[in-house]
Amino acid sequence: MGRALGDNDRMRLVTLADIERAASAVAEVAVRTPLLPADWAGRLRLKPENLQPVGAFKIRGAAAAIAALPESAPGVVTHSSGNHGRALGHVAASRGLRCVVVVPDSAPKVKTDAMRATGAELVIVPGSQRESTAERLRHSEGLLLVPPYDHPDVIAGQGTVGLEILSEAEAPDTVLVPVGGGGLASGVGAAVKALSPRTRVIGVEPELAADAADSLRQGHRVVWSTEATYRTIADGARTTLSELTFAHLDAFVDEIVTVTEAEIRAAVGLLARRSRLVSEPTGALTTAAHLKYGDSWGDTVAVVSGGNVEPTLLAELLMAAT
Amino acid sequence: MGRALGDNDRMRLVTLADIERAASAVAEVAVRTPLLPADWAGRLRLKPENLQPVGAFKIRGAAAAIAALPESAPGVVTHSSGNHGRALGHVAASRGLRCVVVVPDSAPKVKTDAMRATGAELVIVPGSQRESTAERLRHSEGLLLVPPYDHPDVIAGQGTVGLEILSEAEAPDTVLVPVGGGGLASGVGAAVKALSPRTRVIGVEPELAADAADSLRQGHRVVWSTEATYRTIADGARTTLSELTFAHLDAFVDEIVTVTEAEIRAAVGLLARRSRLVSEPTGALTTAAHLKYGDSWGDTVAVVSGGNVEPTLLAELLMAAT
Repeated sequence: MGRALGDNDRMRLVTLADIERAASAVAEVAVRTPLLPADWAGRLRLKPENLQPVGAFKIRGAAAAIAALPESAPGVVTHSSGNHGRALGHVAASRGLRCVVVVPDSAPKVKTDAMRATGAELVIVPGSQRESTAERLRHSEGLLLVPPYDHPDVIAGQGTVGLEILSEAEAPDTVLVPVGGGGLASGVGAAVKALSPRTRVIGVEPELAADAADSLRQGHRVVWSTEATYRTIADGARTTLSELTFAHLDAFVDEIVTVTEAEIRAAVGLLARRSRLVSEPTGALTTAAHLKYGDSWGDTVAVVSGGNVEPTLLAELLMAAT
Repeated sequence: MGRALGDNDRMRLVTLADIERAASAVAEVAVRTPLLPADWAGRLRLKPENLQPVGAFKIRGAAAAIAALPESAPGVVTHSSGNHGRALGHVAASRGLRCVVVVPDSAPKVKTDAMRATGAELVIVPGSQRESTAERLRHSEGLLLVPPYDHPDVIAGQGTVGLEILSEAEAPDTVLVPVGGGGLASGVGAAVKALSPRTRVIGVEPELAADAADSLRQGHRVVWSTEATYRTIADGARTTLSELTFAHLDAFVDEIVTVTEAEIRAAVGLLARRSRLVSEPTGALTTAAHLKYGDSWGDTVAVVSGGNVEPTLLAELLMAAT
């Protein structure tokens, strides 16, 4: 276990060196996903993080954060709508660590089932209480908090997605990342801008949860209410930025674009029909954005962030897409 | 363009050197697919060839065969229920070559649409007439025949799947390949047995199209009627072996197991739900076999051969799986 990036480092931006250091812990548990040409959608290649063991890129941040824990750590606690909790549970189990996940009561059953299957203990609360409950358990149970995105080790882990994209022969003109809490966009932005400053990093949000676009436009972190953001089907994009991820997006993300619910739903169906990938709505955000705006983006890589979708919803969207 | 393995070589078994030579042509158009852990199914990793640009491993054989054509070749003709025709059309288009595909009238629409989209010309005939029609067009149109499996260059191309599986850190105990015409099993068997003789190569067929199992048991090639083999949902497994692929299977495949239609259908649903992969019924044969028999197979890699499935069927199987 390495040195954790501690409280003193919290507003320091994650560097390429941090991400390269995270890469070895990530390689132990994550798949190195290929880039898949998606000619049906134009000059697009997909980075299918839905194929990770836990169905999402989150395994990378969890692996990096757990690798950086002190040897004496008794266990970890987090809050998550599903993918981060499942990833942390998966990695914690492989290290014999206790893992408690605070889950908003709106989380889809497919995700809560998957979290339980890792051996993690679940605590279900209303969406607005998830962070405070995790904070309380941290103290009462003596656990270490591994938040889903507001942590430099987690961001460094997610950044390995960018490292892998840039390790291909030619740097793309554009990289598309979904934005929820901003951990993936922060890490990918840090990696891409360090290795290929000319490559544009574009974040994608649902129109109904466009708090990051709003924040970048206003020049400071803007928080949307959970009532507002919970309207979108893209459950991974309902969370808001932290000061740390806002600082990364402000430094490394060129632009944030938004897509409608109908565009997200269509993209889920098209990814299954045309690229044979099962994606969750949040995972389809970047493809939806490319179909909407991509003509001027040149060679583009879209991160398909996750694939944990309810089968009934997938079946519905599969039949709706053309 | 390299030297084609000509008629004099037709009963010579494909070697590791042939497969290694095919690898560079394959790398130009195919994705190097990763191995995906599928813990939900035991000690199983998946080789997801459904993620290839044409949705199937067939792009490898097509690339190898077209790379070996003489410079003067005016175009190619083949017979295919879909995936090979699409692959050949895709690679031919990238070389500016004409491509004619003879298609059995039972081919699913998703596959005929995909073949047409590559620019290939389609000729639809009853299933029993596909080989004779392709042979006739070869002479009347002056085209070179690239059969879907009965050709050493095609087999060498498919063998690169085995080369990639064995390039991982540790050789698996078992490799599972679906068997239709036998091109994939021939090539993978040749590669695996050359690189790791102790690794078992197990072919998988539908019970309703078990002509290869029958052939290996009887020690010579047994042909089942199209009426018989066309009963299975796994359309890629309806074809029978050639003398060339029978000779490879006899030399390199340890065993062939069979699965029922219900087991195939369940595996399609499970691959989508648990591994986030859209597979066609033939692509799910190996997973079905692992779920049925895999407890004693040790560390196993299953080739998911393709993913071109009708959306209505996928939606149905997705909801049926648990």
